[in-house]
Amino acid sequence: MLERKTELSSLTEPPKAAMSSPGPRFILTLSCPDTVGIVFAVAAFLAQRDCNIIDSAQYGDRDSGLFFMRTSFSAPVGGPAQVELDAEFSEIASRFQMAWTIHDTAKRQRLLILTSKFGHCLNDLLYRYRTGGLDVEIPAIVSNHRDFYQLAAWHNVPFHYLAVTPETKLQQEAKLWEIVEDEKIDLVVLARYMQVLSPNLCRRLEGRAINIHHSFLPSFRGAKPYHQAFTRGVKLIGATAHYVSAELDEGPIIEQEVERVDHTVGPEELVAVGRDIENVVLARAVKYHTEHRVLLNGGKTVVFR
Amino acid sequence: MLERKTELSSLTEPPKAAMSSPGPRFILTLSCPDTVGIVFAVAAFLAQRDCNIIDSAQYGDRDSGLFFMRTSFSAPVGGPAQVELDAEFSEIASRFQMAWTIHDTAKRQRLLILTSKFGHCLNDLLYRYRTGGLDVEIPAIVSNHRDFYQLAAWHNVPFHYLAVTPETKLQQEAKLWEIVEDEKIDLVVLARYMQVLSPNLCRRLEGRAINIHHSFLPSFRGAKPYHQAFTRGVKLIGATAHYVSAELDEGPIIEQEVERVDHTVGPEELVAVGRDIENVVLARAVKYHTEHRVLLNGGKTVVFR
Amino acid sequence: MLERKTELSSLTEPPKAAMSSPGPRFILTLSCPDTVGIVFAVAAFLAQRDCNIIDSAQYGDRDSGLFFMRTSFSAPVGGPAQVELDAEFSEIASRFQMAWTIHDTAKRQRLLILTSKFGHCLNDLLYRYRTGGLDVEIPAIVSNHRDFYQLAAWHNVPFHYLAVTPETKLQQEAKLWEIVEDEKIDLVVLARYMQVLSPNLCRRLEGRAINIHHSFLPSFRGAKPYHQAFTRGVKLIGATAHYVSAELDEGPIIEQEVERVDHTVGPEELVAVGRDIENVVLARAVKYHTEHRVLLNGGKTVVFR
Amino acid sequence: MLERKTELSSLTEPPKAAMSSPGPRFILTLSCPDTVGIVFAVAAFLAQRDCNIIDSAQYGDRDSGLFFMRTSFSAPVGGPAQVELDAEFSEIASRFQMAWTIHDTAKRQRLLILTSKFGHCLNDLLYRYRTGGLDVEIPAIVSNHRDFYQLAAWHNVPFHYLAVTPETKLQQEAKLWEIVEDEKIDLVVLARYMQVLSPNLCRRLEGRAINIHHSFLPSFRGAKPYHQAFTRGVKLIGATAHYVSAELDEGPIIEQEVERVDHTVGPEELVAVGRDIENVVLARAVKYHTEHRVLLNGGKTVVFR
Repeated sequence: MLERKTELSSLTEPPKAAMSSPGPRFILTLSCPDTVGIVFAVAAFLAQRDCNIIDSAQYGDRDSGLFFMRTSFSAPVGGPAQVELDAEFSEIASRFQMAWTIHDTAKRQRLLILTSKFGHCLNDLLYRYRTGGLDVEIPAIVSNHRDFYQLAAWHNVPFHYLAVTPETKLQQEAKLWEIVEDEKIDLVVLARYMQVLSPNLCRRLEGRAINIHHSFLPSFRGAKPYHQAFTRGVKLIGATAHYVSAELDEGPIIEQEVERVDHTVGPEELVAVGRDIENVVLARAVKYHTEHRVLLNGGKTVVFR
Repeated sequence: MLERKTELSSLTEPPKAAMSSPGPRFILTLSCPDTVGIVFAVAAFLAQRDCNIIDSAQYGDRDSGLFFMRTSFSAPVGGPAQVELDAEFSEIASRFQMAWTIHDTAKRQRLLILTSKFGHCLNDLLYRYRTGGLDVEIPAIVSNHRDFYQLAAWHNVPFHYLAVTPETKLQQEAKLWEIVEDEKIDLVVLARYMQVLSPNLCRRLEGRAINIHHSFLPSFRGAKPYHQAFTRGVKLIGATAHYVSAELDEGPIIEQEVERVDHTVGPEELVAVGRDIENVVLARAVKYHTEHRVLLNGGKTVVFR
Repeated sequence: MLERKTELSSLTEPPKAAMSSPGPRFILTLSCPDTVGIVFAVAAFLAQRDCNIIDSAQYGDRDSGLFFMRTSFSAPVGGPAQVELDAEFSEIASRFQMAWTIHDTAKRQRLLILTSKFGHCLNDLLYRYRTGGLDVEIPAIVSNHRDFYQLAAWHNVPFHYLAVTPETKLQQEAKLWEIVEDEKIDLVVLARYMQVLSPNLCRRLEGRAINIHHSFLPSFRGAKPYHQAFTRGVKLIGATAHYVSAELDEGPIIEQEVERVDHTVGPEELVAVGRDIENVVLARAVKYHTEHRVLLNGGKTVVFR
Repeated sequence: MLERKTELSSLTEPPKAAMSSPGPRFILTLSCPDTVGIVFAVAAFLAQRDCNIIDSAQYGDRDSGLFFMRTSFSAPVGGPAQVELDAEFSEIASRFQMAWTIHDTAKRQRLLILTSKFGHCLNDLLYRYRTGGLDVEIPAIVSNHRDFYQLAAWHNVPFHYLAVTPETKLQQEAKLWEIVEDEKIDLVVLARYMQVLSPNLCRRLEGRAINIHHSFLPSFRGAKPYHQAFTRGVKLIGATAHYVSAELDEGPIIEQEVERVDHTVGPEELVAVGRDIENVVLARAVKYHTEHRVLLNGGKTVVFR
């Protein structure tokens, strides 16, 4: 990701100094109607509090007329806490009609992983979590099958078995929601979870639930995409990580990848080839999200890498 | 492509000898219901005529129950001519209900290129043609615009300007068909030709007209795919070469390729990025086809590379 | 992989019948000087024993003048056992000076995994092993560090801790070799094993030890390849799976893959990006090898996919 | 490329206004030791002259301790001309020990293309030039062979035939340099030019001569890289665009790309596959350079895309 500086950071300290600054780190993300003075207002706000901008990225979307910004900064020791920053920034935010958050980087993002009977993405995420490749907390794994109880146990992550039937669906979603609230979940990851979430739950989780779809969307929506791909005779197959939305497989796309196949690769082999693509694509999307690099832009995403 | 030999070729001559065999070369392509003895019958037919199998590829599709074969062989000097081979092979062909052709490799495939106002694919194909990268004849270029008359003239390829209006469409297609017949065209290449062919013409050209679609089909059918891709916010864009069919953009896919993009790439830049993908994908598809490597398998293709 | 049939298989049974044949399955791999009648001799040998060729691939290398073949076949119930096949085929083999093996597909390949302090490849292989993505036995994991004892234990694979110092190196290699012999190891996988094997051990393991090198060989041989790549400023980084040879990082290449990076990606991030490439490349190479798809061609490989 | 704004641009006008600003456009590129206040100084300099920052990218390299910046801005109508900007900016530049240039975007970059007997890159560049895909001037093509005189003539670009022998080499380089000076060449493109430039000429052209090397550097330096790649048995081949340096094939890398191959692809086919990679890689590098997106960082490049 590009390292950027602004006048004000330069005025105070060089970035290398900032890098080694002992103070707490924060990441401010915002989007608002594009207009004059946004970056100035933000930079001034930070400078007045002796906060150092470590890097900053901006993007103005001519289409939507929206402006997006991600700024990583460090506060001085004994400087403002997040509550103060939130309180004081809200004035600027309301002036520019911003959708915004200030994230304390000391607080790891808390993930809940949903899975069913295909465990490759679960295993991949747990390994990255275990080895620090993914710097998050995983306080809960929820599945409608018992298959991965032992895997969860070995990684010492609480495993919740919530079987789902048409009758119990909403009631189990209620339990799921309870876990989300009790565990203060920041992000729900559908790691090949084979149940469709209710529109209501989708709305509640908007922008904080990522699904891996085993096709190169918008191709092959819905069930058995690899079989659809085989039937259509495509020469490349892919996977797509997107935010969950009430419209199935229509949520904002975060990341995609593809792999070449030919006429000799049957549906089962496509599934096997696809697993590796799904692992990488989902892991990237979760990393981007938990580093606050993904901003929603209507039905699309801005990904500051 | 894998080099393969069969018993019978081995019985007669080693492949390296065969390689340097002075006799005429042929390529037999066939598809038929999968059953016992197909390869044996073919190999026997060739052996009895002292024909050397240079390489051979087979594929049995469990789904369609069809068997596909491509065999390249050389006939002895003073051996059977194509007419005799055709006549004598037809007996075997009918026994196995084969769709088949014996191609004389000395006869270059004859291409007609259709184009409109985007000339990158035309230029790319003409360059490969000129430098032998594409070993074909191009006796005609047809366009509904005059833009590339000079380019065609410089490459010394006859240029036919056939303007198309809703009123003149069928009449111009009649002229196009006349050229196809007069010039004994083997393959019609739609190099960003911005007119939809009539269902009738599509049927007449079935399996011998290749279109380059500027999207990763089946995503973004129809018009302005790059704008559709931009609106959907996909992270990879692609191009697809497929046989023309009466159902727009539904024909059998021959080749596809993709390229990574991000949120900052606007529709116009997507178009520019796409050009390079379109060039490569169309060039590959035309090469595969003119080397008789592509066999139709219902709505799909078998590509023996 | 292409499905191929030969006359003789066709003479006996159609491949679909062969597919469902209840008899034992074997895979014959061979290489020998290219000459007349190899495939015929093999096919005749099998036909005389009512063995069904399920698929077959051949390749003749004009450079080395060597011929390579991989034929998968099923023997009839109550037909010849492997010992008889071996005994009777040896006559043909010696006639053609073949390097050859007949593999009983019922016998899973036995892997020994060597690792050190980077466990991503180990974890990836164990997961594929556990879920059947990799159809092998893993009777032993050997490491010069204790880090992955628990991971091995959870997967219920015996873990051997063999610390290595300049003094103990050969003695520990002797123990390693003991394990190879006791466990009848077919393939040794160096999954980021950070010790160089002695020339003597390399020779003993020739063609049955696969190493994953974390660079796009032949670039960046030796230590810290990602740092070398960073210093050189390459725009793509890669990984290479190759057979171990006495010349470090010079063994025959089995598989390679790359990923795009830019000037902002530091050495540590390159290492992280590289992990995903290493996992996929090593897993592919191990799969190809254990399916007997990889044949040695001097310093290169023939991979029948 | 990310659109970025700074405080000062925000203070004056919104970027969309800036976009449609009627004044002349400039691009400032600079590199200097990383320290406090660089961006501030630049932004202040521009603001004092009512110049609008349209977009801006920065990168601080922890390794080299150098800071890199590219800022695109528009001056007001009747505002400062380039000479004034240059004169007045030099004070800041010297204070920060900057290597810098202010480019007037109205002045197209002037290219001299060097080629020999392989014309695919030449043809590709000329086509992009003709169709505006590459917004440059090409006042001269120089070749040590006559092969592409007609191609040059058709594109109406002066063609200079400078045959090179060991005896005439330096004398011909003198003529080449004459053309560079007479035609005020900004960038020399070695489009498969098969002559090694003398160290002296390399120094003179440092940072303004781009070569396409037909391998994935640093692999396979020097002659016949595709044959080297074939001999080594790599599974991916590539191409590299780099600045020319006195050390052959050691110059800073601008762009690279690869394509998959297998054991059946012989040296000649590798050459053919490579052509498409070379076209795309060289075209990207030339585009980045002529848009002033490439900055030298010792033996490496910073590419602001």
